[in-house]
Amino acid sequence: MPNIPVVETILNVNDQLAEKNRAIFDRAGLLALNVMASPGGGKTSVIARIIDTLRDEARIGVMDGDIVALDLEGFAAQGIPVSLINTGGNCHLDANMVHSALPTMDLDALDLLIIENVGNLICPAAFKLGSHLNVVIASVPEGSDKPYKYPAMFRGADVLLLNKMDLAAYMDFDVDYFRYGVEVLNPGVAFFPISCRTGEGLDAWHAWLRARLAEKIQARA
Amino acid sequence: MPNIPVVETILNVNDQLAEKNRAIFDRAGLLALNVMASPGGGKTSVIARIIDTLRDEARIGVMDGDIVALDLEGFAAQGIPVSLINTGGNCHLDANMVHSALPTMDLDALDLLIIENVGNLICPAAFKLGSHLNVVIASVPEGSDKPYKYPAMFRGADVLLLNKMDLAAYMDFDVDYFRYGVEVLNPGVAFFPISCRTGEGLDAWHAWLRARLAEKIQARA
Repeated sequence: MPNIPVVETILNVNDQLAEKNRAIFDRAGLLALNVMASPGGGKTSVIARIIDTLRDEARIGVMDGDIVALDLEGFAAQGIPVSLINTGGNCHLDANMVHSALPTMDLDALDLLIIENVGNLICPAAFKLGSHLNVVIASVPEGSDKPYKYPAMFRGADVLLLNKMDLAAYMDFDVDYFRYGVEVLNPGVAFFPISCRTGEGLDAWHAWLRARLAEKIQARA
Repeated sequence: MPNIPVVETILNVNDQLAEKNRAIFDRAGLLALNVMASPGGGKTSVIARIIDTLRDEARIGVMDGDIVALDLEGFAAQGIPVSLINTGGNCHLDANMVHSALPTMDLDALDLLIIENVGNLICPAAFKLGSHLNVVIASVPEGSDKPYKYPAMFRGADVLLLNKMDLAAYMDFDVDYFRYGVEVLNPGVAFFPISCRTGEGLDAWHAWLRARLAEKIQARA
């Protein structure tokens, strides 16, 4: 019998651990999000809006890797299970940090696990966590050139939110230039212009997320 | 003769190389700035405004470490010496990257060297480049909680610009909360609220920078 060469993708240690995390999430039957953005892009506001909209239809938990997680207390006060991931001041989450934090949450009691990454458009793009969806948030005041300047982050997005649309009227934001940059990197990516402040566009984004959640819950049966 | 213990600060390799860079800058008699901000915080706009204001009174050069340095061409077209630092997609500049780029510029022909760091509020704070002044740019749309969330960056600033003040009217930005966070971390740091779009506040900031530049030029004699 001849030797048949088998080409295997050699996963690095982080990717291997990310796969373990993914298996744990799948066993629990939950949908896991990795929420990434620049500092001040709106990660916490996006998460707060998801909680407001979906809390009566889904059991939501939040893990926070932001350097100083000032916002977790607010979620906890609403009865949302929260966990602070100790990044040691690091510039991104990795699969091991998430893995270490998993025992702090009852995953079987969750439908949706939201992991808030560190505010950074560069480093988090290089580290898979095991989540099902990379939610990347850009924001209007950051400028329409961001896809061109931070390509890895935009290339890796499963869904892209363009937040702070309420400020577009007061600035020169070239939506076509932004979208062209995104399409080149990540053709057909789900895209929602939103404003967490005014609520603009949130219905469409939440409907999309609700559909992903329903697929996950259906797969349990 | 007794042994007298000498306590030395053990500098790491980056700090040692940063000191070498500083010595080179000082020998050339130029003032070197390390400009840091979030993605879209306004690094390029701040640099463009400095060039507009000071180009007739100072010889300015720009080194750019941003991941994709789209903006250098514009400066070069104005006759400004520019150099692209190859970061290899890294999330920050370090002293070695700057050191490697130094031979690409005629430092003796400069009064002011502006080094544009990678757009990132975390990693660049940990790596000295040898510059004389850390110029940190925050921007109004990022929110007033940024000093609390990214303390290392604000602690290390020699001058802090709060950009996009023209958008403050359209958002909830708590200037007192922002300034309190800054003061706790970095008491008395030079602080200028500005808008690169409208020009608000630029006179005061440029006057401050002009004074630092004059000190440097005077020290040559």
